[in-house]
Amino acid sequence: MTERVREILGWYASDNPGTRANIARMLNHGTLAGTGKMVILPVDQGFEHGPARSFAANPGGYDPNYHFQLAVDAGCNAYAAPLGFLEGGVGQFLGEVPLILKLNNHDVLHDEKDPCSSVTGSVKEALRLGCAAVGFTIYPASSHSRTMYEQLREITQEAKSVGLAVVVWSYPRGTSISKEGETAIDVVAYAAHIAAELGAHIVKVKLPSAHIEQAEAKKVYEKEKIPVGTLAERVRHVVQSVFNGRRIVIFSGGPAKSDDAIFDEVRAIRDGGGFGSIMGRNSFQRKQEAALQFLGTTMKIYSGETP
Amino acid sequence: MTERVREILGWYASDNPGTRANIARMLNHGTLAGTGKMVILPVDQGFEHGPARSFAANPGGYDPNYHFQLAVDAGCNAYAAPLGFLEGGVGQFLGEVPLILKLNNHDVLHDEKDPCSSVTGSVKEALRLGCAAVGFTIYPASSHSRTMYEQLREITQEAKSVGLAVVVWSYPRGTSISKEGETAIDVVAYAAHIAAELGAHIVKVKLPSAHIEQAEAKKVYEKEKIPVGTLAERVRHVVQSVFNGRRIVIFSGGPAKSDDAIFDEVRAIRDGGGFGSIMGRNSFQRKQEAALQFLGTTMKIYSGETP
Amino acid sequence: MTERVREILGWYASDNPGTRANIARMLNHGTLAGTGKMVILPVDQGFEHGPARSFAANPGGYDPNYHFQLAVDAGCNAYAAPLGFLEGGVGQFLGEVPLILKLNNHDVLHDEKDPCSSVTGSVKEALRLGCAAVGFTIYPASSHSRTMYEQLREITQEAKSVGLAVVVWSYPRGTSISKEGETAIDVVAYAAHIAAELGAHIVKVKLPSAHIEQAEAKKVYEKEKIPVGTLAERVRHVVQSVFNGRRIVIFSGGPAKSDDAIFDEVRAIRDGGGFGSIMGRNSFQRKQEAALQFLGTTMKIYSGETP
Amino acid sequence: MTERVREILGWYASDNPGTRANIARMLNHGTLAGTGKMVILPVDQGFEHGPARSFAANPGGYDPNYHFQLAVDAGCNAYAAPLGFLEGGVGQFLGEVPLILKLNNHDVLHDEKDPCSSVTGSVKEALRLGCAAVGFTIYPASSHSRTMYEQLREITQEAKSVGLAVVVWSYPRGTSISKEGETAIDVVAYAAHIAAELGAHIVKVKLPSAHIEQAEAKKVYEKEKIPVGTLAERVRHVVQSVFNGRRIVIFSGGPAKSDDAIFDEVRAIRDGGGFGSIMGRNSFQRKQEAALQFLGTTMKIYSGETP
Amino acid sequence: MTERVREILGWYASDNPGTRANIARMLNHGTLAGTGKMVILPVDQGFEHGPARSFAANPGGYDPNYHFQLAVDAGCNAYAAPLGFLEGGVGQFLGEVPLILKLNNHDVLHDEKDPCSSVTGSVKEALRLGCAAVGFTIYPASSHSRTMYEQLREITQEAKSVGLAVVVWSYPRGTSISKEGETAIDVVAYAAHIAAELGAHIVKVKLPSAHIEQAEAKKVYEKEKIPVGTLAERVRHVVQSVFNGRRIVIFSGGPAKSDDAIFDEVRAIRDGGGFGSIMGRNSFQRKQEAALQFLGTTMKIYSGETP
Repeated sequence: MTERVREILGWYASDNPGTRANIARMLNHGTLAGTGKMVILPVDQGFEHGPARSFAANPGGYDPNYHFQLAVDAGCNAYAAPLGFLEGGVGQFLGEVPLILKLNNHDVLHDEKDPCSSVTGSVKEALRLGCAAVGFTIYPASSHSRTMYEQLREITQEAKSVGLAVVVWSYPRGTSISKEGETAIDVVAYAAHIAAELGAHIVKVKLPSAHIEQAEAKKVYEKEKIPVGTLAERVRHVVQSVFNGRRIVIFSGGPAKSDDAIFDEVRAIRDGGGFGSIMGRNSFQRKQEAALQFLGTTMKIYSGETP
Repeated sequence: MTERVREILGWYASDNPGTRANIARMLNHGTLAGTGKMVILPVDQGFEHGPARSFAANPGGYDPNYHFQLAVDAGCNAYAAPLGFLEGGVGQFLGEVPLILKLNNHDVLHDEKDPCSSVTGSVKEALRLGCAAVGFTIYPASSHSRTMYEQLREITQEAKSVGLAVVVWSYPRGTSISKEGETAIDVVAYAAHIAAELGAHIVKVKLPSAHIEQAEAKKVYEKEKIPVGTLAERVRHVVQSVFNGRRIVIFSGGPAKSDDAIFDEVRAIRDGGGFGSIMGRNSFQRKQEAALQFLGTTMKIYSGETP
Repeated sequence: MTERVREILGWYASDNPGTRANIARMLNHGTLAGTGKMVILPVDQGFEHGPARSFAANPGGYDPNYHFQLAVDAGCNAYAAPLGFLEGGVGQFLGEVPLILKLNNHDVLHDEKDPCSSVTGSVKEALRLGCAAVGFTIYPASSHSRTMYEQLREITQEAKSVGLAVVVWSYPRGTSISKEGETAIDVVAYAAHIAAELGAHIVKVKLPSAHIEQAEAKKVYEKEKIPVGTLAERVRHVVQSVFNGRRIVIFSGGPAKSDDAIFDEVRAIRDGGGFGSIMGRNSFQRKQEAALQFLGTTMKIYSGETP
Repeated sequence: MTERVREILGWYASDNPGTRANIARMLNHGTLAGTGKMVILPVDQGFEHGPARSFAANPGGYDPNYHFQLAVDAGCNAYAAPLGFLEGGVGQFLGEVPLILKLNNHDVLHDEKDPCSSVTGSVKEALRLGCAAVGFTIYPASSHSRTMYEQLREITQEAKSVGLAVVVWSYPRGTSISKEGETAIDVVAYAAHIAAELGAHIVKVKLPSAHIEQAEAKKVYEKEKIPVGTLAERVRHVVQSVFNGRRIVIFSGGPAKSDDAIFDEVRAIRDGGGFGSIMGRNSFQRKQEAALQFLGTTMKIYSGETP
Repeated sequence: MTERVREILGWYASDNPGTRANIARMLNHGTLAGTGKMVILPVDQGFEHGPARSFAANPGGYDPNYHFQLAVDAGCNAYAAPLGFLEGGVGQFLGEVPLILKLNNHDVLHDEKDPCSSVTGSVKEALRLGCAAVGFTIYPASSHSRTMYEQLREITQEAKSVGLAVVVWSYPRGTSISKEGETAIDVVAYAAHIAAELGAHIVKVKLPSAHIEQAEAKKVYEKEKIPVGTLAERVRHVVQSVFNGRRIVIFSGGPAKSDDAIFDEVRAIRDGGGFGSIMGRNSFQRKQEAALQFLGTTMKIYSGETP
């Protein structure tokens, strides 16, 4: 147990030993074990966007085993997927990588302006499959946010009572905000804070832009001169917004871009005090070899091996 | 236990022995026992379309016993029906054919553009009636899809905990897609994938057309040159979309057509790697003798006895 | 136990002995005991239409005891009423007549085009009051049909688990069909079939007219030349539609008419293979003496004593 | 135990001894003990209309203890109030007066045309506070009537199972009827009947006017020449409508008027066979001395001491 | 135990010893221990308004530990916060200050005219974290008030059964009242009364203005000449409206103003018989030293040390 991991676990003093052990399981697994940094492989795109859009570019990914193997080989801290995809491979990879059962999902066969994911799994299923954590998406700014917060509240209580950790994807979406506002710095920081207030152990948000969406917030950002000019500053502000950094906050990169651009983002996350990345399409939509290299470089940036 | 059945059961390693035994019960029953192929007799048309539209053409079918006998005599792998129809004959056919209790149903006395079936049975009833599996219909693309996914989630969890298998009918319908889109290859593959992600052991979809419904998907099908020109290719793509073939996927034929046309469809399912057919109206709406011959030919195509 | 009752009970082989004994209790009680025919007295009109419209014509009926006494004296197979009306008299008539607790009711102080009855009792209350069965109304063709089917599903499961029988009033109503369509032969047969699929032991429908409501059904009725010209033919078709006669189907007569007209309807029910009548307002809205004579004649027609 | 009380308790033969004992507790308490008549003090106006509108006229009433004392001193049969008001005084008046916990309430900070009270207490709370009964308001004619009936159904079942009595306030309100219709004789009689069918032991309605609201009912009232010309006749008709008088029916007087007018109403209730009054604002909005005199006179009219 | 605290605890005679002990814990903690007065530190602004708007002015407040320390150092009677913020610091401050878990929260990423907070915690979580009480916000005048009242009812029952106290924030908001009406004296008094009727032990409202919102109430205020001209009079009227002062009522000050203005408000609360203040932004948005001085002066006004 490194000092850094011990320090992080200290932030979760309100949790029972089972939950803290599962947070430790993820922090102490894979290439970044012990560094306090995390790279998680998530594969819910089959549900969210459809199988061809997700896996045709690298057809090995149609197979649930593929992603388990990728997560193991790349040394990811954890692998996150919906019920079926975990069921499809868990028997072949018993205990080889910490698992996160994603408990709600959304598809685009029926889309809506104020989205609400469907609950597709449960804490009991996560226990059955030997997971370390459950995952849940909330859409703050959706008119259905109340439904999702209350579903999360019940899941969080149950998960904590049985010693699981809780990872919350907090993605502002809905008619209350603009498209640009979904990644505005004030909105992302707010969404991250809400996830932590709802009891998340690990908060996952999108990388924020310098846009400020809410008029009342804009006044404060200007008055207090909160630095949000660079990505690293914005990451730092988001991390601060989550209990002054006393909760693990990780970031996703959004739409595909050049690898160099992504690595720059990773450096900004690292330099801003972020705890890591969740990398889905950028990982499994390239050939496995390339994916391993890509993830390897990412991890080296986080560990400091690569500047 | 044949090698093929053993292989298939291996895909369900996350399930308890009770559930795997019930999948085996269906795979090892009837004419196609041990081949890994399935022909299932479903009779929920009385509920879905009304009794006269379903049974007047062959009035023996008004009697629930008729369909049990037909499934037994034809050597079907399983017989699926709603609560009442199973209750009506189960006492006379104890253990003679694996049963699937259909847990939700829809009628056309009240129809709607975004449909949602009513829950009409339960896992407990399936146990009471000695079933091997429960069946459930989801309508992806309906504005009620969330309701149905969440009902299925609860049913799936309960069924798996008591050793039953889960068969999901995944039929895209609703105002989010066009009529043609209901059988579009991208939509059917997506719907099949969703069913598997929701934890289905057996997925049942309609045979897909070459139409591609969703603009974002179309780009990928074209870019990746996914072959969907022939029915066999489309079946192969659907099977691939369901965990790279690691879940049983069966097909229904849709509206009545000539027997030769149906047999050609069966060949395409077989050649595309599909696992079988679910054949309702084409079976019970003809005289029993003719039905037995029709189902017999179908099974011979699947077993390879007939090319 | 007559052969006929034994035969009927054989249709319910999926039920536990408790439930079958309660079906037997009703079939073996009163004037028609052992014939396989039933005349049931229902008194929910106070709730459905208001007390004055129900009882002012024969004010004895304001008193719940009156109807118990009438059912006992007339030798009805069972007496059905809502919670309050059963509570009001059950202590005075312990075990004198099989009771059916009507578990949902509707009033006309608030009416709506797509009706949904309120649940006003429970299986537990039926047990407390010593009932043989529970009753439940569904309105197929109402936009609330899903709610009612799902309420019935839960009630049916619970009732069967504690050995009670289930009687379903299936009355198509709602904006999906025309007023005339509520008693159309295709609609009534469909509604009766749905009730049986939902697990009803006894199905109660209105006498059907020769009208055919649904275009898709009309094609089949014409193509298959289903005889629906006479009332007896229509009764026969409804009975056939309910599992080929393997469920008890009884009929109500609708609005008041001459006694001779009613007796002709009873003959048509008998000749069409129907199992009996449920007679409310025609019974309790006349003086008791007249009611006993009226019900006596009805029973004699069913028993064959009167042609 | 007087003969009259014994007779009344005989009407509740379907209830367990606990519930009947609690009905007896109320009938045998206070000035009217043993007469079969009841005067109940209800104080939910603070919730329903706000504290100043309820208590400013006699500020002692802001204090929950005041009403306990008033009910005790006046010899009321019972005191009814919402959770907080009972909690506020029950510890000081242990066992001094039978208590009715009002389980739902409505406020006018948010009003609506089709009202639905909020559930604000529970049967378990009534047991905790040592109550003899629970109270519940239904608004027949509201589009939310189904919600309220079903809430009442659950409460009634639970209350009866633990030996409590159930008092139902049945107040027709909503867009289905006119303002005048709320107290129309046909509507009030119907509402009282519904409450009894839902299992109420004690029904509370407003005094009816001679207006007849519903066209179908009007035909019957005219055809059967139901006498509703005088208030006593209307009370008699309401009492008859509630199981021919085999349930306790009490009346409220509505808006403030002269004492003489109220006493005339009380005489009409008595002469029409009503069982008593529920008197809130007329009691606690005058000084305690005056209230005691007012309630004393009312009780004397009921007991027959005053003609 | 001072006489005053003993007196206050006497008002809660309907509660079990566990709940009364927790009320005592809060009354007997900190600078105002034993005086019967309370100053509570609430920090839910991060959830309600976003992290930057809440904490940028004094960035120490991003850290959950900061507020625990502030509440301890200032000698507050209790510290109230949502789940995450309590979890974040409770392990470091075991037993150092009574805790109130705020069980519902609202954010402005999605705002609405008729608000309804999301339930974000539970009584079980409050027990897990060692809290003395739970907190809950209701918005009387919102069209969702029924939902919130019924959630509170369940929480209140559970909290009381496990020995916790219940603090209710009662904030009228919604389309039924004007903006000005939210702090109108009639509305605030009514909202406070409702909270108490719903079973709150401690009621928290905003300081009322002299505006009277409701026409029916206005008549009474004028007729009865209820004095509401000064703030102290209005406080007195609110306290009277809450069971004649037999429930603890505390006040919040609303938007920031000069310290002198706030201290004048505190004097008015004290002089009007109010029980204290809940002071959030005015406390944690200034540097800790200044906050301690500010809270210290407030407490001295309440204790009478400062006039």
